[in-house]
Amino acid sequence: MWFFEDIEIGRRSDIGAYTFTAESIKTFAAKFDPQRFHLDEEEGRKSLFGGLAASGWHVGSACMSLLVANGQRAVKEATARGDKVAVSGPSPGFRDLRWIRPVLAGDTISFSSVIIDKRTSASRPGWGIVQSRTTGINQRGEEVYSITATGFVPLRGA
Amino acid sequence: MWFFEDIEIGRRSDIGAYTFTAESIKTFAAKFDPQRFHLDEEEGRKSLFGGLAASGWHVGSACMSLLVANGQRAVKEATARGDKVAVSGPSPGFRDLRWIRPVLAGDTISFSSVIIDKRTSASRPGWGIVQSRTTGINQRGEEVYSITATGFVPLRGA
Repeated sequence: MWFFEDIEIGRRSDIGAYTFTAESIKTFAAKFDPQRFHLDEEEGRKSLFGGLAASGWHVGSACMSLLVANGQRAVKEATARGDKVAVSGPSPGFRDLRWIRPVLAGDTISFSSVIIDKRTSASRPGWGIVQSRTTGINQRGEEVYSITATGFVPLRGA
Repeated sequence: MWFFEDIEIGRRSDIGAYTFTAESIKTFAAKFDPQRFHLDEEEGRKSLFGGLAASGWHVGSACMSLLVANGQRAVKEATARGDKVAVSGPSPGFRDLRWIRPVLAGDTISFSSVIIDKRTSASRPGWGIVQSRTTGINQRGEEVYSITATGFVPLRGA
């Protein structure tokens, strides 16, 4: 919902929080990451994680769900104000995803993003490339997750 | 299930194939990535993807499910042969995840991994660090997904 020109390097935004219940951890794991420490409390306690631990893909997907909800909320607000709304391009991927600490059943992770770089695209006129780092912090203030993503954002003038 | 000493740089393994049905694409998206081109055929057709497209997180999670199934199968086979089975450490994360082409409803993606680097860990005695690149190819032979992952693997001697 932002145009390239509106994006400020260093700006941080809160994205929201996600609580990982034991049930949601097991449901995700059964489908996509059926390792024993993601499926069973006792196996989790015996593992290096020290408890029933969310799949890293569950953590990443939960973060994505908050990013999307946040974007949709911002579009609604911009539309209500009568602002022109930018439509981002697809993401080509990301680098430097880190699962820093386990996310255990009952943990609430708060995510925030900061813009770390922006430049205009040489190959796609009318588009800019923006890099942001999103981090997740648990209820004890410990960083558990970080991801550096690249996205295409339209230029206002284009 | 491999020990560090058994791992050969350049070795490629087939991991299996995953078919993305329209229903599975929408179910994942509704929960974790509710963008319109992941939820509705017509919106997908109108988008840059050109059809109902799987969330990139769905593609990554599906690949993970095959990696886990593959690992569990290998453990079973090794156990049946009476081989000692190595237990890998948790993954600290990855770099260079790329969504190269859209994955559309009906696509079947075949995944394979190749070992690209191995070294012993300086900080964790008894462990090695192995880098592998996993790629996904669609039914037309086009690369759609790639991820470079780092994992801890125990030394046989430790």
